[in-house]
Amino acid sequence: MSGVVGIVSKKKVGKELLFSLNSIQHRGQDSAGIIVSDGKNLIRMRGSGLVSEVFSEKNLNNIESHIGIGHVRSSPEGLNQDYNIEPLFSFIKGEEFSIGNDGNIMNYKSLKKDLENEGISFHTHTDSELIIFLIARYFKGDIVESIRKTMAKLIGGYSCVIAMPDKLIAFRDRLGIRPLMVGHNEENIVVASENAAIEILGVDDYRDLEAGEIIVIDRDGYKSFKMEEDLNPRHCIFEYVYTSRPDANIDGINSYMFRRRCGETLFKESPVDVDLVCPVPDSGTPSAIGYAQASGIPFAEGLVRNRYMGRTFIKCTQEEREIAVKQKLAPQKAVIKGKRIVLVDDSIVRGTTSINLIEQIRTAGVKEIHLMITSPPFKYPCYYGVDTPNKDKLMANNLNIEEMREAIGVDSLHFISLEGLISASKTDGESFCKACFTGDYAKYGEKI
Amino acid sequence: MSGVVGIVSKKKVGKELLFSLNSIQHRGQDSAGIIVSDGKNLIRMRGSGLVSEVFSEKNLNNIESHIGIGHVRSSPEGLNQDYNIEPLFSFIKGEEFSIGNDGNIMNYKSLKKDLENEGISFHTHTDSELIIFLIARYFKGDIVESIRKTMAKLIGGYSCVIAMPDKLIAFRDRLGIRPLMVGHNEENIVVASENAAIEILGVDDYRDLEAGEIIVIDRDGYKSFKMEEDLNPRHCIFEYVYTSRPDANIDGINSYMFRRRCGETLFKESPVDVDLVCPVPDSGTPSAIGYAQASGIPFAEGLVRNRYMGRTFIKCTQEEREIAVKQKLAPQKAVIKGKRIVLVDDSIVRGTTSINLIEQIRTAGVKEIHLMITSPPFKYPCYYGVDTPNKDKLMANNLNIEEMREAIGVDSLHFISLEGLISASKTDGESFCKACFTGDYAKYGEKI
Amino acid sequence: MSGVVGIVSKKKVGKELLFSLNSIQHRGQDSAGIIVSDGKNLIRMRGSGLVSEVFSEKNLNNIESHIGIGHVRSSPEGLNQDYNIEPLFSFIKGEEFSIGNDGNIMNYKSLKKDLENEGISFHTHTDSELIIFLIARYFKGDIVESIRKTMAKLIGGYSCVIAMPDKLIAFRDRLGIRPLMVGHNEENIVVASENAAIEILGVDDYRDLEAGEIIVIDRDGYKSFKMEEDLNPRHCIFEYVYTSRPDANIDGINSYMFRRRCGETLFKESPVDVDLVCPVPDSGTPSAIGYAQASGIPFAEGLVRNRYMGRTFIKCTQEEREIAVKQKLAPQKAVIKGKRIVLVDDSIVRGTTSINLIEQIRTAGVKEIHLMITSPPFKYPCYYGVDTPNKDKLMANNLNIEEMREAIGVDSLHFISLEGLISASKTDGESFCKACFTGDYAKYGEKI
Amino acid sequence: MSGVVGIVSKKKVGKELLFSLNSIQHRGQDSAGIIVSDGKNLIRMRGSGLVSEVFSEKNLNNIESHIGIGHVRSSPEGLNQDYNIEPLFSFIKGEEFSIGNDGNIMNYKSLKKDLENEGISFHTHTDSELIIFLIARYFKGDIVESIRKTMAKLIGGYSCVIAMPDKLIAFRDRLGIRPLMVGHNEENIVVASENAAIEILGVDDYRDLEAGEIIVIDRDGYKSFKMEEDLNPRHCIFEYVYTSRPDANIDGINSYMFRRRCGETLFKESPVDVDLVCPVPDSGTPSAIGYAQASGIPFAEGLVRNRYMGRTFIKCTQEEREIAVKQKLAPQKAVIKGKRIVLVDDSIVRGTTSINLIEQIRTAGVKEIHLMITSPPFKYPCYYGVDTPNKDKLMANNLNIEEMREAIGVDSLHFISLEGLISASKTDGESFCKACFTGDYAKYGEKI
Repeated sequence: MSGVVGIVSKKKVGKELLFSLNSIQHRGQDSAGIIVSDGKNLIRMRGSGLVSEVFSEKNLNNIESHIGIGHVRSSPEGLNQDYNIEPLFSFIKGEEFSIGNDGNIMNYKSLKKDLENEGISFHTHTDSELIIFLIARYFKGDIVESIRKTMAKLIGGYSCVIAMPDKLIAFRDRLGIRPLMVGHNEENIVVASENAAIEILGVDDYRDLEAGEIIVIDRDGYKSFKMEEDLNPRHCIFEYVYTSRPDANIDGINSYMFRRRCGETLFKESPVDVDLVCPVPDSGTPSAIGYAQASGIPFAEGLVRNRYMGRTFIKCTQEEREIAVKQKLAPQKAVIKGKRIVLVDDSIVRGTTSINLIEQIRTAGVKEIHLMITSPPFKYPCYYGVDTPNKDKLMANNLNIEEMREAIGVDSLHFISLEGLISASKTDGESFCKACFTGDYAKYGEKI
Repeated sequence: MSGVVGIVSKKKVGKELLFSLNSIQHRGQDSAGIIVSDGKNLIRMRGSGLVSEVFSEKNLNNIESHIGIGHVRSSPEGLNQDYNIEPLFSFIKGEEFSIGNDGNIMNYKSLKKDLENEGISFHTHTDSELIIFLIARYFKGDIVESIRKTMAKLIGGYSCVIAMPDKLIAFRDRLGIRPLMVGHNEENIVVASENAAIEILGVDDYRDLEAGEIIVIDRDGYKSFKMEEDLNPRHCIFEYVYTSRPDANIDGINSYMFRRRCGETLFKESPVDVDLVCPVPDSGTPSAIGYAQASGIPFAEGLVRNRYMGRTFIKCTQEEREIAVKQKLAPQKAVIKGKRIVLVDDSIVRGTTSINLIEQIRTAGVKEIHLMITSPPFKYPCYYGVDTPNKDKLMANNLNIEEMREAIGVDSLHFISLEGLISASKTDGESFCKACFTGDYAKYGEKI
Repeated sequence: MSGVVGIVSKKKVGKELLFSLNSIQHRGQDSAGIIVSDGKNLIRMRGSGLVSEVFSEKNLNNIESHIGIGHVRSSPEGLNQDYNIEPLFSFIKGEEFSIGNDGNIMNYKSLKKDLENEGISFHTHTDSELIIFLIARYFKGDIVESIRKTMAKLIGGYSCVIAMPDKLIAFRDRLGIRPLMVGHNEENIVVASENAAIEILGVDDYRDLEAGEIIVIDRDGYKSFKMEEDLNPRHCIFEYVYTSRPDANIDGINSYMFRRRCGETLFKESPVDVDLVCPVPDSGTPSAIGYAQASGIPFAEGLVRNRYMGRTFIKCTQEEREIAVKQKLAPQKAVIKGKRIVLVDDSIVRGTTSINLIEQIRTAGVKEIHLMITSPPFKYPCYYGVDTPNKDKLMANNLNIEEMREAIGVDSLHFISLEGLISASKTDGESFCKACFTGDYAKYGEKI
Repeated sequence: MSGVVGIVSKKKVGKELLFSLNSIQHRGQDSAGIIVSDGKNLIRMRGSGLVSEVFSEKNLNNIESHIGIGHVRSSPEGLNQDYNIEPLFSFIKGEEFSIGNDGNIMNYKSLKKDLENEGISFHTHTDSELIIFLIARYFKGDIVESIRKTMAKLIGGYSCVIAMPDKLIAFRDRLGIRPLMVGHNEENIVVASENAAIEILGVDDYRDLEAGEIIVIDRDGYKSFKMEEDLNPRHCIFEYVYTSRPDANIDGINSYMFRRRCGETLFKESPVDVDLVCPVPDSGTPSAIGYAQASGIPFAEGLVRNRYMGRTFIKCTQEEREIAVKQKLAPQKAVIKGKRIVLVDDSIVRGTTSINLIEQIRTAGVKEIHLMITSPPFKYPCYYGVDTPNKDKLMANNLNIEEMREAIGVDSLHFISLEGLISASKTDGESFCKACFTGDYAKYGEKI
């Protein structure tokens, strides 16, 4: 999982990139990077950790730049090497070039193998480097044309930002799987994974890029280009369930209201008699409020989230990791002791997080826990950019619901139905990618 | 404002100090420090920023230590120099000595002047250094005796932890103004400002230090000592209103339940007809839930808190500071647009934060804002350790409630009554320091 | 200019790499880097500055490695970007790969253009990246074969070290222009630009790699391979004049003795009547001693070298740069005031250093300065790895000796003759590259 | 051992402090610090390592300062804690105050004990903190008066610089043991341990401070004050033998010429028949030249000094320390193999350095080594600031010359006579402290 931003401004960009990046920090906490243009050259700063950790010592005020991109990244296990931190820097036919991407290329391995067979050596494990090599390969002077040809080769979800010394380019995959937006006011044109990163700069006028859209921005404004062939979009439904901030407006849907309606729906589908409705913060909160209000059962914060969590506490021994979990979410004894509660969470992937969490809540002396999940069972890995384990590690793939309930150790376990989830979106659901629930992966060239 | 921790363990302490400190990070975000004993010498690590920022690069695993103290600190303007970062290190009669303090000494200036007249030069602006010099002055071989004599001189609120190569000492001021607790299990004895820092290490058995109590801890256990003269305690009521984490249990009162009852009381005292009850997170949330449930009005998150806020975004230009505020709390248009809302916040000190916040919420197109404050008007500066401005900068000291309402720009403004606040505590209120609301400062020697 | 080292050891390598690198720090002070193998993966550490600056904070003891390479580099103006710091890291057909190089590829531009036209994008400005792409291109499973094919393409001087997870490879260009040696004892096999980096590890048994030799080293030992076609070697004569340490033994010649004989020869060719013979330290010292002893004129240190020079003092304003020069070499008034001196220096390239130095010496009140240069006029740029300016910036290309004398401001100016220089080598001079003095560049394919 | 500088300038100081400090880096390589005044406050930067390492990342250009002091320090074993790094910062009667010192207070322990008994706690192990407390104690508004009273208490050698927000103060102990100079031109007034730190800033007009002199410098100029009572000075003779740079002019004597005459005298006192005269660089070089020229025996560099030595290589295991020595000074086989050499060194303290060095030279196959020492046997510890071991660790205190020769492993061993040393100074020797050779320690109050 990743988040991208790009800014072209009449004023200097620098701290602005950090403000934007920090607004989408929830999309990746393992590394952060920016690349800015000083008009002639690109300058890169990047490192491991949160935006505020990586850039705390840098004097961004010294940078005279009007164009820049940024990236935050949550690195899958084993791929956290420094050289993988985006944005990547390169030259295309001698011209400086940089790229940041949110997403995943399904045919990465085969495309990479083709290039390696032609004698290209890769310097990183990132999809972005593959995209660079493809663009370089197709580049004959027209960057849009070479991106278009590259996109025709790529299967998967991707939202890319590119900085060159004199311009910024953004493009979204042909099914519009991963989110990407562009906003502008008199001073700035801003591209980002989520609107929070646009609005933070005082830009209120924004729109989603269409599936397959390419936009080129320089200090005069921006131009939009499209892939010739139009495909039906398949926007990731999991963005609303978990990935995005609650205030995200992606492809016409507000995540907060969506989540809230999920809570209402869950009550309709799975009413239980309890004393309190508690969320697993933060993504579970709107749904818990929805459940509480639909049911009339009091809403309560049964878990306290520590809002200061940095890098230090991530890489530890097993014992330390348990402390880290506890530190992130502490059960509120005074609130939940002796109570029967509904606990609302967004999803169960491996199941280990839920098991640990429930175990910890039990120590607070809670009487009954009824776990409500605001998404259907997660049975199929995502190949489009959400970091998920192999199929055999997905709890819902191995166990039925009763077995899951027992493994997690709750009194009852309820998932929202796929229909319920779709109804909460207030759409017919046709334009969603729901592969993680259904196994129905969209591929280009197939009839969708 | 500050937070302190101290650990004596049968195992190594190191990361444990960080886990504890991180649990009370909300008590101070400007600097962090630890001092540990290797059995013979004290070793100090400290720096500006969050715990996770200061210690991210340190290899704490290499430290062989069983005794250590830690400190987080929010530095008042102009006093953020490195040399002020606690714990402080010194020698008393050649023996290594270190101290961290949460609180404020009211007679700091006069005591310091006395010492300077005797030819002592200070190295920092901290109360802690004054305490060191006093302890050194009275030290004749018995550390407890010299602390007792020092405490007899000090007027104010203070909760101190001291590390020496072979022991840890903690003491709480004679009115028990600032919180301080001690807990223990088979492996650890832990002292801390709040129970979160104790419970995170798996220690569930803890108690408050009494007002005027001194405890000395070494690897064999701990001993307790008292000031001869007993005073009626005056615990800071603002800890429950704002300072502490919601899961804090301080001097017999749980902050979350207290805040929740404040919300209920506020509804009883100031019922208004609105569409939604929204908190200013995080301290306003339990009260907003209380107000919502007492009134039957739906509770909603009208503001989104960004949970990744680091140091970078603190020291900026005016414009950048506005962005920083916005970044911290973004209004949720989809939730509050066109709505009449009750907004629940903990307090109004200078008033500037409220003014900025309301202005920002207005941009989201809210129809009416009724601001509910879970504390009485804050009219008098705190001299016991809560960082407040001079009296003439306290909004409630300069304006009446109607003037404040107008200045802040809300449709109505309501403060909980002092009686209401006390009733929410479920005590008779006698043991609280309420000076910030009443101006009735407790002083030693006076009849209280 | 650069220096390379590579170590395969039965013990851990880590600090050993630093000891070796530090021994050849004179070959490049702008950046330093190492790459070590942990048996499975390569780990890179690098940064701007001296070895002792880049690595001062790293805990090299934690690295479990038996294979590693290192690089120090003096970056030509405008190419000091971080991404150019070697060793470079890459993957060849998915296998981790890294390279460090001392030298310069003459046909870099045309080879790069060819690759770019085929759609390869470069990430750095280094020759080493070109070498990686060529090796990758030719790689079909046999790394030696692909290096051989790569060498057949490359025109220029280069001494490369390659680290892979399980082995170390070193190769020297087909004319043997840049130095490269290999030594071994029971514990270590060490490859390096100069013997100082080998001897520092207690390895006294070493030999030069032959021109066009490739060696592959793993923990079992090393194997040597050769290009099919043998060429007459053309070893850089400037190594003995300036580049190498005085204790270097390169291709059978000891630099110190060579320099000393240059001083004797200079006296024979250009005897002058003075009070003192002073060197420009450090490269001028042995020659000044030689001149002094041949002439019977007292030798004296007229300039004091500050032996603590770090990075800080390099990037400055013009005024600061002057201070930096002065700081590096301060004239010794007490020694040279009122004296007629012979000043012995190694070479005049741009002439600016000489002009500044003489101006400074004049402030010490010296009576006469006779400047002796231990190399012939430097008229032609080096294309083989010695960092030289364009031909039109070479002083000896623009001015005759009398004009140079006047520009530099000395009483007389003398260069050693090319014959004199060769005679000091005690060889017939056939195996030297002398292109900087003669313009006779060796090229592959030409009859040499 | 330490070095101090202080600058008051019409221009900004910042890099100037570093240039000066770097010029006296030889006086201490373990830590470096500066304190500058921004007109109102003092700002401190300090750290472990060389000047170029400590300050490489700091942006000194941002400091608007016209007053500053700096310190380099070689920390005795066990006292290298961060809090001991000078300059120290403090407040005297609320006014900011800072101090750096080169020297040693003989009655430190007793003065410290007195202060501790009065209830003062120390924060460091430095003499400078004692001096601060004494000055604070005597301060009644007139800083010069309080320094004078402080100096009357102190027994020992010290050269101090003090920065306050609006002025710089320097003072030299009453016997003038440690060097201290002041120079000025139109822009700058500079105080420093050695003239190199003054001349580097273009200031050529400088003089020694007299023994017991106090000078107060602000932007209008400087005023000089004296202790009432005049004592005969006792300048450290070891400055000329070893401590200072060769270009130092201290109390009327030039170190280079002094050393050279020592070499000549040594030949007169101890002529031997050898092939080469080799120095132990750098302090032995002028003496070796003197010996060579007096004897007519060829001078040669038999040892190569690596001029890039940083912090990394200092703190290591025993084996690594041996490598470090070797790295610092490598024997030149090509020069000394099979030769009989005179080796000229400045002194023998513990003897271990000499033993290791000779062992290493032996590996180069030298035939005979005749070691010439340019100072008499070092029999008594220095209590005035030169870092020496206890008496029982001084080789010359335990062994006679023949035993030392055998222990070191040389063919013959010769020390210059005390008379010879004094004659090389071209003075009657009355104003020298020669206690390390004679045990005759000067004390105030005694008749000298």
